[in-house]
Amino acid sequence: MNETSPPRRSVGRPRKSGDAAVPDRDLSQTVRKAVSVLQAVSAGEGGSTLTDIARALDVSTTVCHRLLATLDHEQLVEREPSTGRYRLGMRFVELARRAQRQHPISLSTINLMHQLSQETDDVILLMVENRGEALCVDRVEGRAPVIVAGSQIGSRLPLHCGGAPFAILAFSDDAFIDEVLSRPLTKATPRTTIDPTAIRQRIADTRARGFSIGDEDLFEYVVAVGAPIFGAGGHMLGAISVGGIKPRYDATRVLEIGARLRDAAAALSASLREKSSLEGVG
Amino acid sequence: MNETSPPRRSVGRPRKSGDAAVPDRDLSQTVRKAVSVLQAVSAGEGGSTLTDIARALDVSTTVCHRLLATLDHEQLVEREPSTGRYRLGMRFVELARRAQRQHPISLSTINLMHQLSQETDDVILLMVENRGEALCVDRVEGRAPVIVAGSQIGSRLPLHCGGAPFAILAFSDDAFIDEVLSRPLTKATPRTTIDPTAIRQRIADTRARGFSIGDEDLFEYVVAVGAPIFGAGGHMLGAISVGGIKPRYDATRVLEIGARLRDAAAALSASLREKSSLEGVG
Repeated sequence: MNETSPPRRSVGRPRKSGDAAVPDRDLSQTVRKAVSVLQAVSAGEGGSTLTDIARALDVSTTVCHRLLATLDHEQLVEREPSTGRYRLGMRFVELARRAQRQHPISLSTINLMHQLSQETDDVILLMVENRGEALCVDRVEGRAPVIVAGSQIGSRLPLHCGGAPFAILAFSDDAFIDEVLSRPLTKATPRTTIDPTAIRQRIADTRARGFSIGDEDLFEYVVAVGAPIFGAGGHMLGAISVGGIKPRYDATRVLEIGARLRDAAAALSASLREKSSLEGVG
Repeated sequence: MNETSPPRRSVGRPRKSGDAAVPDRDLSQTVRKAVSVLQAVSAGEGGSTLTDIARALDVSTTVCHRLLATLDHEQLVEREPSTGRYRLGMRFVELARRAQRQHPISLSTINLMHQLSQETDDVILLMVENRGEALCVDRVEGRAPVIVAGSQIGSRLPLHCGGAPFAILAFSDDAFIDEVLSRPLTKATPRTTIDPTAIRQRIADTRARGFSIGDEDLFEYVVAVGAPIFGAGGHMLGAISVGGIKPRYDATRVLEIGARLRDAAAALSASLREKSSLEGVG
């Protein structure tokens, strides 16, 4: 029964993508402060003023102005001439594209995503784990008349519900799962499971089946299935989901599409492992 | 004839989005160095090693390692566990989405872009000026059987050719145009105009017409028309283009779609000015 299930490996701990914790003294506090400024600017819906940001970060306006001026100079923030408010610079759009092109998951999955969207007419999403959440990094829309708009590229979702997010969680290592389940979990819909024991049972079911089933637990009226993608060294790169509105997903179609997705994701993972071992030779 | 032409206003000088040049001593050199590291990481197709980056930036590996460790900690870079190579972090995908949502051009243009793609079946692009180039920040695909793949979200194009890029150039202020035309210009196709005098004539034609026409001067077989969008205070926010393969664009259709685009862009600009003056009141 478990033959088609991919192996479970670490996706890295939340809040840290590197190999080991780095002591604070080995990090540049100025750069960290600049990233906090970026984060504060990104949080303001209509842009933020210098005073807003300095207050949010509890730094002097002098320090904050120097960092904002530098980020403006580097085009990572833009200052609206009429209001003086800062917002993130459009240069991030370019950097995001480069991040996508450099990541082993994006280029390798795009053909499969288009194929699945043509087969199912539904929305195909690609998600990766990022700071303990699922980050949507690619999206292909099928031709179904109703399209799920909730997961756009760049949006963040919790890991304990949905198709791709839950697949990421279920196929992570146990330490990561323990960490996620130790946090307070919230209900995205009335049907979201937030009890850690019940989530562990869903994880076991998902591992046995080889794919996740998210039945109205992330967005109402929406059903999705998700399967993980593994790269070099069995490292989990992320997960793909196929989903649409509930009337399109009776129990039979859920299992059919889930199995199709699981097998396609497993074939892709195998080709990535092979590609990486060939690179090791060459 | 000029009544439908939008006003010409500054889009800001290349390499500087703020109001005035900031003296170097008022900028954080550490943050600037960290941004250079990001830039170097983004340039490496298959990821970059610490040594590559230190050499490219002419800094010690100690300094470089400290900056990379900080950027890794902040999830702006990711280190591939099997090769030790650094690539941009997928967190940029999230930041790009926030940058798009904060920019006044993105939210206001999306309805118009969908409308134009349904009317024309062609590809609609939204571009903004960034570091003296056109940066594609949004894209809506129509249902034409052949789709121009050259301009994806996040790609950069020169300003002296194409539909939206040339519209940005043509409706910029004269100082900006002088600066762009003082640089060495390259041919994107055999039909690209690179002679500054001829480009100035095309700019005059574009201003008089109210929209640009790019006829196989950016991509072979591709024709596009472009029109600028202006926001609060007449500040140019960027430009929209409609384009497709040459056989779909005879002279009559070019002028029809160009006029439709120009008028729609002018109406959108007027509504943005009105919205901003209402905000000023409230």
